[in-house]
Amino acid sequence: MLFKHSLVLFFLGYTLLHAQQPKVNQDRLENRILELAQFGLQENGETERVAFSDADVAAQQWVVQTLKDLGLQVHIDFAGNVVGMRKGTDATLKPIAFGSHIDRVPNGGNYDGCVGSMASLEVLEVLNEHNIKTKHPLEVLIFSNEEGGVMGSRALAGHLGKDALKVTNSTGFTMGEGIMRLGGDTTRIAEVARKKGDLAAFLELHIEQGGILEKENLDIGIVEGIVGLKWWDVEFTGFANHAGTTPMNARQDALLAAAKFIVAVNDITNSFEGAQVGTVGKIKAEPGAPNVIPGKVVTSLEIRDLSSEVIEKVYRAIEEKGAQIASASNVQIEFRPLDTTADPAIMDSTIQSEIEASAEKLKLSTKRMPSGAGHDAQDMAMITPTGMIFVPSKGGISHSPKEFTTAEDMANGANVLLHTILALDKKL
Amino acid sequence: MLFKHSLVLFFLGYTLLHAQQPKVNQDRLENRILELAQFGLQENGETERVAFSDADVAAQQWVVQTLKDLGLQVHIDFAGNVVGMRKGTDATLKPIAFGSHIDRVPNGGNYDGCVGSMASLEVLEVLNEHNIKTKHPLEVLIFSNEEGGVMGSRALAGHLGKDALKVTNSTGFTMGEGIMRLGGDTTRIAEVARKKGDLAAFLELHIEQGGILEKENLDIGIVEGIVGLKWWDVEFTGFANHAGTTPMNARQDALLAAAKFIVAVNDITNSFEGAQVGTVGKIKAEPGAPNVIPGKVVTSLEIRDLSSEVIEKVYRAIEEKGAQIASASNVQIEFRPLDTTADPAIMDSTIQSEIEASAEKLKLSTKRMPSGAGHDAQDMAMITPTGMIFVPSKGGISHSPKEFTTAEDMANGANVLLHTILALDKKL
Repeated sequence: MLFKHSLVLFFLGYTLLHAQQPKVNQDRLENRILELAQFGLQENGETERVAFSDADVAAQQWVVQTLKDLGLQVHIDFAGNVVGMRKGTDATLKPIAFGSHIDRVPNGGNYDGCVGSMASLEVLEVLNEHNIKTKHPLEVLIFSNEEGGVMGSRALAGHLGKDALKVTNSTGFTMGEGIMRLGGDTTRIAEVARKKGDLAAFLELHIEQGGILEKENLDIGIVEGIVGLKWWDVEFTGFANHAGTTPMNARQDALLAAAKFIVAVNDITNSFEGAQVGTVGKIKAEPGAPNVIPGKVVTSLEIRDLSSEVIEKVYRAIEEKGAQIASASNVQIEFRPLDTTADPAIMDSTIQSEIEASAEKLKLSTKRMPSGAGHDAQDMAMITPTGMIFVPSKGGISHSPKEFTTAEDMANGANVLLHTILALDKKL
Repeated sequence: MLFKHSLVLFFLGYTLLHAQQPKVNQDRLENRILELAQFGLQENGETERVAFSDADVAAQQWVVQTLKDLGLQVHIDFAGNVVGMRKGTDATLKPIAFGSHIDRVPNGGNYDGCVGSMASLEVLEVLNEHNIKTKHPLEVLIFSNEEGGVMGSRALAGHLGKDALKVTNSTGFTMGEGIMRLGGDTTRIAEVARKKGDLAAFLELHIEQGGILEKENLDIGIVEGIVGLKWWDVEFTGFANHAGTTPMNARQDALLAAAKFIVAVNDITNSFEGAQVGTVGKIKAEPGAPNVIPGKVVTSLEIRDLSSEVIEKVYRAIEEKGAQIASASNVQIEFRPLDTTADPAIMDSTIQSEIEASAEKLKLSTKRMPSGAGHDAQDMAMITPTGMIFVPSKGGISHSPKEFTTAEDMANGANVLLHTILALDKKL
């Protein structure tokens, strides 16, 4: 009887570990998130870890050590990225890369890029535990200074702007100085650029920042692409005049025209099918006194979409309506395009399908969706087939100490990351 | 024949001078306007004469001397007002007062209060020329510091605020210091206050600052009243969020709500019969970045009308619509009344009729209208029956070096002033 029971238990254990899908350890993943949050912990209980800060440098060293402990070959590249290599069984294959970033915006939260970074470590833990060897080498990439201009991934993609290194962030260090602090080398930064074909694929897990997954009670977002954006300044020129003596029908009120324009931006953006967004976030009225009809108003205009054509289409409609509003208001309007364009980055369709299949296998609900925010994956998509996995963030809050993702949601995302890597390893 | 001709000519001359209406000398009036503009003349050909400046003090002394030359008893009162008295034939009657101000806003024009001030001198010239004695004493009042808070007339009306004397204008002098410069006495300023009944009437001629008379090709505006005004700050509280990741239908966009509100202020103000005006002149959006949905917006709101009831009615409609807009936009709205209320001042109906009759007699076209701007007459109306006469200002431009009123229009206004004084002298 004893022997028979033992046999059953042994068989059951074997089935759980090998015949079933390998799964990440939810507690271990959450503990790593909490451990990472210690780097930069302030007296008020919140963490500050802007790129190049002492906390950022220390956290980066901790990640390097953790990757080494997991058996990887690790180095910091000339752009300050942490690069960890796990050998594959087929030396002819290019690496499947995955990762994210651990730097944070000022007054940011513990999840953002940390979830994808710590999930990458957890994936390696599980592969080691299950003694799984992949055909492809696996490359973990923890990018430097994502929040301050996707610096590390831009360097890897070979299009870090010439003047970027002169930009100073809230630590007071320039990007160039920051790269030196992280252990990079600004004189050799061009050498980190990868050519197309150097990687087999890139995957990034990240929190979803729009609150859509939470609202629709879904587990996993399959990112279709990262939206591009265009910015304009829109200037309205009327005639500043005495608000007491100028009759309503004799006014050239630049603010009234701008107000109608802001309403129109919203209406027009909503009038097209799709997930495009149009925003007026900035406004200045001159002279700006309660008793003077504004003679000049400048507003911002931002349009984002996965398709450059849609951005153009929405803009043309806004431009046309703006001209009508201005004309009817006896006001001049001028659109001035700004040099802050980001092109949309489409995620690889094969990888999207593999993410979907992995989630289905794990019985997780999914939704295909755009990413409204920029990510390292946006740059990586320029040099390799790229995919992104989203997990819910409570209330869609991000870049805030209130940011929160449950351990279960993080584990779901890490499991999808793990199984997508394994599926791509077979497929590519 | 010669004798006969002389008799005819004599008779004709007598008729012109006495039987016909006395008329002001248009050239003399315009020359005084140009002479006054010499006080504060700059190298660029424009005049600066802010209250309390050397130019203001010098111009005031010139007015005092001119009034003395015209035979008046003149003094500067404790509030810095120039007060000129011309005796009447009936010692029991109270004075009919008239006048305006000669101080100017920074970067102002040559007309504004100068027209009514110089026309007052011209009226005295004509009365002297025609040897006309009025029953009532006539009192010329050239008020101090009109542009910086209707200081002189407020003092006369007995409601100059306690803290007003501490306010500094662009000369760098406080009102208190400025009063001393003008020859007043801040310790005895309360003594200048007139009681109700101390004056028989007050008349002010002024340029019309809304461009209505010019547009409608009319000679004379008969002011029905000076509008009151109320100010509010209106605060919209939404939720600041990422403009890329927050879907259009999940936004709490405080600026979109404020834009709809600004359009509504215009629509509602126009929806009522009447000449009321509603203005949003000031706006601030936070955080005010092109890629962040504004979480907070504060706008100004100003409503002016001749009737406090109309101001209240328009406000109630705006308040109700504002609440609807806020609710539909998932945004909070708060109206905060500001302590800058001015009550409407109704012009005396008998005086309005006399102005109209005088204009008709002079074959001048008229229009009854409100004054959208504040004037010394607004304060004088608190202590005596008051009337205002408007003349056209080119393009409705005021408080600008481009301000311009033709000599003919000024003479028309001065003639109406003269004949209204004579009519009131008979009537009151």
